[in-house]
Amino acid sequence: MKTRFPGFRPGLVVLQVGDREDSNLYISVKLKAAAEIGINANHLRLPKSATEDEVLRSIMVVNENPAIHGLIVQLPLDSVNRIDTEKVTNAVAPEKDVDGLTSINAGKLARGDLGNCFIPCTPNGCMELIRQTGRCLAGRATNATRGSNVSAVIPDLGFLWLCVILLHSYRDIVISRSCPPKPIDQLAREVGLLSDEVEMYGKTKAKVQLSVIKRLEGHSDGKYVVVTGITPTPLGEGKSTTTVGLVQAMGAHLNLNAFACVRQPSQGPTFGIKGGAAGGGYSQVIPMEEFNLHLTGDIHAITAANNLVAAAIDARVFHEATQSDKALFSRLVPLSGGQRKFSPIQLNRLKRLGIEKVDPNTLTEEEVTRFVRLDIDPESITWQRVMDTNDRFLRKLTIGQSSTEKGFTRTTQFDISVASEIMAVLALTSSLEDMRSRLARMVVATSRSGKPITTEDLGVSGALTVLMRDAIKPNLMQTLEGTPVFVHAGPFANIAHGNSSILADKIALKLVGPDGFVVTEAGFGADIGMEKFFNIKCRYSGLRPHVVVLVATVRALKMHGGGPTVTAGLTLPKEYTEENLELLEKGCCNLRKQVQNAMAFGVPVVVAVNAFKTDTDAELDLVCRLAKSAGAFDAVHCSHWAKGGAGAVALGQAVQKAAEAPSDFKFLYDVELPIVDKIRIIAQKIYGADDVELLPEAQHKVELYTKQGFGNLPICMAKTHLSLSHDSEKKGVPTGFILPIRDIRASVGAGFLYPLVGTMSTMPGLPTRPCFYDIDLDPETEQVDGLF
Amino acid sequence: MKTRFPGFRPGLVVLQVGDREDSNLYISVKLKAAAEIGINANHLRLPKSATEDEVLRSIMVVNENPAIHGLIVQLPLDSVNRIDTEKVTNAVAPEKDVDGLTSINAGKLARGDLGNCFIPCTPNGCMELIRQTGRCLAGRATNATRGSNVSAVIPDLGFLWLCVILLHSYRDIVISRSCPPKPIDQLAREVGLLSDEVEMYGKTKAKVQLSVIKRLEGHSDGKYVVVTGITPTPLGEGKSTTTVGLVQAMGAHLNLNAFACVRQPSQGPTFGIKGGAAGGGYSQVIPMEEFNLHLTGDIHAITAANNLVAAAIDARVFHEATQSDKALFSRLVPLSGGQRKFSPIQLNRLKRLGIEKVDPNTLTEEEVTRFVRLDIDPESITWQRVMDTNDRFLRKLTIGQSSTEKGFTRTTQFDISVASEIMAVLALTSSLEDMRSRLARMVVATSRSGKPITTEDLGVSGALTVLMRDAIKPNLMQTLEGTPVFVHAGPFANIAHGNSSILADKIALKLVGPDGFVVTEAGFGADIGMEKFFNIKCRYSGLRPHVVVLVATVRALKMHGGGPTVTAGLTLPKEYTEENLELLEKGCCNLRKQVQNAMAFGVPVVVAVNAFKTDTDAELDLVCRLAKSAGAFDAVHCSHWAKGGAGAVALGQAVQKAAEAPSDFKFLYDVELPIVDKIRIIAQKIYGADDVELLPEAQHKVELYTKQGFGNLPICMAKTHLSLSHDSEKKGVPTGFILPIRDIRASVGAGFLYPLVGTMSTMPGLPTRPCFYDIDLDPETEQVDGLF
Repeated sequence: MKTRFPGFRPGLVVLQVGDREDSNLYISVKLKAAAEIGINANHLRLPKSATEDEVLRSIMVVNENPAIHGLIVQLPLDSVNRIDTEKVTNAVAPEKDVDGLTSINAGKLARGDLGNCFIPCTPNGCMELIRQTGRCLAGRATNATRGSNVSAVIPDLGFLWLCVILLHSYRDIVISRSCPPKPIDQLAREVGLLSDEVEMYGKTKAKVQLSVIKRLEGHSDGKYVVVTGITPTPLGEGKSTTTVGLVQAMGAHLNLNAFACVRQPSQGPTFGIKGGAAGGGYSQVIPMEEFNLHLTGDIHAITAANNLVAAAIDARVFHEATQSDKALFSRLVPLSGGQRKFSPIQLNRLKRLGIEKVDPNTLTEEEVTRFVRLDIDPESITWQRVMDTNDRFLRKLTIGQSSTEKGFTRTTQFDISVASEIMAVLALTSSLEDMRSRLARMVVATSRSGKPITTEDLGVSGALTVLMRDAIKPNLMQTLEGTPVFVHAGPFANIAHGNSSILADKIALKLVGPDGFVVTEAGFGADIGMEKFFNIKCRYSGLRPHVVVLVATVRALKMHGGGPTVTAGLTLPKEYTEENLELLEKGCCNLRKQVQNAMAFGVPVVVAVNAFKTDTDAELDLVCRLAKSAGAFDAVHCSHWAKGGAGAVALGQAVQKAAEAPSDFKFLYDVELPIVDKIRIIAQKIYGADDVELLPEAQHKVELYTKQGFGNLPICMAKTHLSLSHDSEKKGVPTGFILPIRDIRASVGAGFLYPLVGTMSTMPGLPTRPCFYDIDLDPETEQVDGLF
Repeated sequence: MKTRFPGFRPGLVVLQVGDREDSNLYISVKLKAAAEIGINANHLRLPKSATEDEVLRSIMVVNENPAIHGLIVQLPLDSVNRIDTEKVTNAVAPEKDVDGLTSINAGKLARGDLGNCFIPCTPNGCMELIRQTGRCLAGRATNATRGSNVSAVIPDLGFLWLCVILLHSYRDIVISRSCPPKPIDQLAREVGLLSDEVEMYGKTKAKVQLSVIKRLEGHSDGKYVVVTGITPTPLGEGKSTTTVGLVQAMGAHLNLNAFACVRQPSQGPTFGIKGGAAGGGYSQVIPMEEFNLHLTGDIHAITAANNLVAAAIDARVFHEATQSDKALFSRLVPLSGGQRKFSPIQLNRLKRLGIEKVDPNTLTEEEVTRFVRLDIDPESITWQRVMDTNDRFLRKLTIGQSSTEKGFTRTTQFDISVASEIMAVLALTSSLEDMRSRLARMVVATSRSGKPITTEDLGVSGALTVLMRDAIKPNLMQTLEGTPVFVHAGPFANIAHGNSSILADKIALKLVGPDGFVVTEAGFGADIGMEKFFNIKCRYSGLRPHVVVLVATVRALKMHGGGPTVTAGLTLPKEYTEENLELLEKGCCNLRKQVQNAMAFGVPVVVAVNAFKTDTDAELDLVCRLAKSAGAFDAVHCSHWAKGGAGAVALGQAVQKAAEAPSDFKFLYDVELPIVDKIRIIAQKIYGADDVELLPEAQHKVELYTKQGFGNLPICMAKTHLSLSHDSEKKGVPTGFILPIRDIRASVGAGFLYPLVGTMSTMPGLPTRPCFYDIDLDPETEQVDGLF
C-alpha cells in the first residue's frame, strides 16, 4: 500500500477568449484560489477572434467531461456583438438531467441587458465568485435529482465573465464513470498481494485466493472498524457511503492503509425499484455497473447451488415415493464392475446413522431401509428455490404439475437469491474446509420421525462446495479515490445476519498491517446489524472490533422526534428541510439508545453525522453535542457524499483516535443459554422490550431445535429495521412493549437460529415502472446508461 | 500463433534395478522403439542393491503421475529372493478406477512360479512387447470405464522384466488435470490478440473483446470447417472429441493455425446424469472443470436476463389488471420536476404504435390507452422462466398464489437455461448493436387483438442488453495440446439451432489467417445440426464453409444396419463388439444419406471414422470405402480419443486437401417462400419424407406468424436426432413417411420459426443417484473430484 490515487477533486474550467496580460494574471490568481479550496481548475484558451461556433464547441467538450463541474467563460466585452451570450449560457450542459439550466437568468444575460446580473468585480469580488463556486460544488450533498446553478457576468478589465456551475446533481453512474479506475492488478500489487494470489476478472475486478491467509499468518492484524447506524428512515442514512468515504479519507488523505469491506448487492432491485448500491456521490465503489451486475458471479453460484439442493429434495421425495427399498438401494449403490461401493458422501450418511459398515453387501434389510429412505416430511421442507430477480409471482407456487411427476405436487416459494442460507454460509465461513462442512450441515427438512435432513443426506454437499469454490474468494475492487475494497457476500439483514464476509475482513486486516484500518459495514441499524455483527460474525471469526462508527442524519433524528412520515418517492415535508432544533433534540433519544447499544459491547463509538445540504450548522452541532453526552467517544460532521474522502477527514481522525482508546469487547449472551433466554436478552437489552412472547409455532420450534441439538446456536433476529421495537411505526425509543416471536427457523449450516418477529418478505416485486425502463447500453461506447 | 505446445504423448517409464552394459543397450533400443510408435518413454534407475521398499516407492511415484500410462520394471533375476514380485505388481496403480490391476496374473507372478508367464525374449520378442504396449495404449479408444492390462515377465539377459500397462481408463478429469494449461494470456498473445482485447477470468479463461473484429476487418478469413455426424446412437458418436482432436492435429502436429469453436454446456446435466462435456480422452478442452462449471458466467447472465423478462411479463399483466389507464400512465410516465417525459424505450414503443409524438401531454385518451395497455392474452404467453438446474418439478407449475397477487394465478413452466431464446440470440448475433435489436424484437406473447408483444413493449430490452454485455464476448480456452478454443453459446439443438456463436467463428477466422482453419461443431446429426448450420447460422453470418467433416462410428452404423437397441448405461450387445461386416455394410445407408445431405449444400465432405477399440481394420476400411463411393471427398480412420492430435493427423491432412477443392455453397431454400414450403423442402430433401402434415395448431400458427410478418424467417426443425424421420425407432434411412408438424413456435429475436415434430423435453430431471454423489472438492488441493 505505497502509492494511491490522489483524492478526487471537483473540476473547474476557465474558458478564456482573447488574451491580455493583465487578464492572464487574474486568471492565474483565480486558478490558484480554486486550487486552495480543493477545486481542480483548468485553463482553456481561444483566440480573441474566436467565433460563436468555436466558443460553443469548446463548451460542448466541457459538457461531455463529467469530471468537470464548473465552468467560467471569459469573453472580450467587444465580442457581444458577434457572440450571443444567451446561446453561450444555454450551451452549457445540455444533459437532460440538469434542471433549469436552459432557462436560468437567460433573460438577464441576453445581449444588451448585461447590467442586471453584474456582481462587483474587485479582486475580492472575483474571489467571492470562486468561493461561491466552491460552496455550490459542496452543495451537492443532499439530493441527486435536483440541480442548482449560479451564473454571473462580470465586466472585468474589459472582459465579460460568465460563471456557470454545472451539474451538481450528477447521478452516481456519471461520477463513477468520471474516475477511470486504476488497473486492478496494480491495486493488488499496491496492497501487497502477490500476482499468484490474484485472479483477474477483466480489468477492474479480481478474486483473491485464500492462500494469502496462510502466507500472512504470522503478521499482525490492523484495526477493525464496523459502520452501523441509528434507526433509519426508509430512505437509508448513508452507512455504505460513510464506509466508502471513511476509507477514502484514511487512504487518500490521511495516508493510512485502509480497506473497505462491503456487501455485494442483489441484482434484482437494480432492475426493480431501488437501483444500484455502491455508496453514492463522491464516495463510491467503482465501476458501479460492475459492482451492481454479475460482479464475478458469486450470487449466480449461490443460485445454482441453492437450486441444486431444491431439485435434489423434490426428486428424492419423488423417487422414494415411487420405488421399493430394494430398487432405491440398487440405484443409489449401483453395481459397477460386478461390485457395489458407497461413495464417500454415502459413508458419511451411514456414519451419522450409526452404521459403521463400508461394504454395501453387509447391510441388514433394516439398515438398507434406514439408509435409502430419508423419509422427508414434505410439509417440513424449509429449503426454498431462489432467483436473483424481483419476481413477485414466485412468492407462492405449486410445483410438480407435469404428468411426469405423477401427481406429487407441492406448494412452495422462491426467495431472492441473497436470502439463501448458502449466502449466509459464504459470509460466515473461514476456509474451504469449513465451507464444505457448513454446506453439508445445512438442514433442509425434517424426516417423518423428527430427524433433521441435511444436504449431506441428499448426497449433494460435495457438489455444492464445487459450485462455490470460486465464490469463496473475496472480490477486490476500488473506491473513486483508488483505495481498496473487498466486495464479498451480501446476506439478508433480517432472516440472516446482514454482514459481508469474514474471509474478506480477515484478509484485509492482514493486508493493512497493524497501523492500518479495515472498515466493514453492518446492515440495518445498530440494534440489528451491529448486534449480529458482534454476536454472530465476531463470534465465528474470533475477530475483535476496535471502533463502532454510528451514522446519524438530522433527517432521521427529526423523524424520531415526531416529524411527519418519510416515504420513498415523495417530497420531504418541510420539517426536514428547514432548521428545527426542537424536533431534532427530541429525536436524539434514538441516537442515545443506539450509542448505548454499541457501548454495551465495550467498544468505543464515533458518531458520524452525515450532513445534507439543508442541515444547518446549529443542527449538526446539536447532534454532535448530544452524541458525546450519550457517551460517544467523539462525534463529527461528514460530507463525503459531496466531497469524497476530503469530506470525511475529521471522521477518519476521530476513528484513528478511538482505535487507540481502551476497549473491552464482550458478547451480549452466552450461546449455551436456552434459546428463549438468548432472545430475551437481545429484546430487553438492545430493543428495550419488557419481555418476549413466543407464539405456539415458535414454542414448538424451540422444543424441536433443542431436541435436534441446535439449541446452542447464536440468535439472528428477523425484525423490522424501522423501529427499535417490532412495530415499524414506533419511532424514537419505544418502551413498555412485549416482543412477539411468531416462529423460529434454523440456518444450521450458516450457524444461527432466526426468530421471526413479524412477516419478512423474501421476494421483492417489480413496480409498474421498474428501473429497467431507463437502463440501456450504448452500443458505440459500450457504456451502461440509466443505472443510478 | 507462432509457438504451440507439442502434441501430448502417452507416457511410459522403464524402471531399471541394477545396471549392466548389455541391458542398457536393450533398454535404449526399447526406448527408441517406444518413441517411434508415439510413446513418450522415460528411464528410471535404481542401484542393484535396491530394497523392495525402494522399488515400491518408485512405483508409487509413477502411479501418482497421470501423464504416465505404462510401466516396465526390470529386476535382476537374483533379486527375487529379496523382492516379492507379487508386491511389485500389486503396487502398480493403486488408483481405484483401474480395474483388476491388483489381481492380474498375481498368481502367475508369485515368487517361484515365474515360468508360466514368460514370453520369448529374443530382441524381436522385446519389440513385440513394446508393440503390445503401444497397441494397448491405443486401445483406450472405446470405453472410459473399462481398463485392460498386459503383464509379462521376461527372463532377459539375466533380468526379470515385468511389463504392466497402466490406466487405459483414466477418466477425462484425470487426463485433463495431467496437462497443465499454459497461461491464457500467453495463448492470447500466441494467437495474435492484443492485451487490450483480452479480459482475463482467472488464469485459464479469458473473454475476447469484439473490438478485435474491427481491428482485423481488412484481413482475410481462414478456412471454415463444420463437424457433424451420422444419425447417432443415444451414446453419441464423438463429434466434440473429433472437433478438438482435429484442431489438435492441425495445430500441434501439422503446424497449421487452427481454432476450435465449441458450445458451452449446460451446468444442469453436469450434476444430473450426463456428467461433463469437453470432448474426451486425449482430445479435450481444459481445464474441464472450468469448462463445465460457471465458465465466465454467460449462462448465468442468460438466466438473469430471461427471468427478468418473465418477471416483467407477469408483473405487467398484474398491473394492467389492477389499474386504470390513467393510473398506469401516470406511473409509467411519472412527473419529475413538474414534467412528464417518455424514456427512449417508450418512444420506441410509441413509434411502433404509429404515434409520432414525444410530449406525453399531447397524447389523446385513446393513444394513452393504446400506449399503457399491452393487453397481453395470458394464454398466449410463450416466454418461460429458466434455470440451469435439472429440476423436474418445475416442468409445470402454477404461479402467483400468494395473496399479494390477488388471485391472478397462471400455469407455466421452467426450461433449462440453454433453452432460452436469449441463448439463441447470443449464438446468432453479429455485434452489440445487433444483439440489442434482437433482444428487443423477441416476441413473448400476443395481445388480445392479435399483435405480437415484444420485450421492447415491456421496456426491458435495454436492461437485457446490459445484462448480456459481457456474455457477448467469446471465451478463450485451450485443448490438451495447447491449441486455442473459443467456447461461446450453447443453444438447444432441437427448439433452437444447436450451434456455437457466429461471433466466435468470425473472430477465429480472422485470427487464424487465410492458411489457417476454424473448426466448429454443429449439434446432433447432419440432418439437424448441419442443416441448421447452413440454413440459419451461415445465412445470418454470411460465412461460407469450406469443408464438412462427417463423424461416423462402426457402432452407430451397425445399429442402422439393424443391430440391437443401444441404451445408455447398459452393456453393448456383442454385435457391436465383434466384427460384423454384413450389419455394418447394411447400416452404411445412413452414412450415404448424410453424405448426400452435406453435398446438397455444395460443400466437400470428409468422413471421419471415429475408431473404437473393438472395431476391426476390415470394418474401418469398409466404412471408408463406402463413404467414398457415396461421394465423400475422403474418408479416414481417427484415434484422437486415445492418442490426441496424433490420432487425427490423417483427418487433418484430408481436411486440408478438401479445403482446396472447388465448392459451390448454396442454401436449401429461399426464406421468402411460404412457411409450409420451407418445412416441406427440409422434410423431403434432408429427411427423405414423402410430405409434411400440419396439425391444426401448426396450421393456425402458420396463419398467425404470416400475418404478424414473421413468415420470412428461416426454419429450425425441432425433431428427434435419433432418426432421419420423426420416429426415433426408425433407423437407417426411413422412407415412405409423412412428417407430422404438431405446432410451430417463433423465436423472432433469434430469427427463426421452430416447427415441433413431436414433443421436446426442455427440462431434464435428476435420476435416483445423480452424478453429484461422486462430486466433491478436495479442500487441500482445491481440486474437483468426481467430474468425468
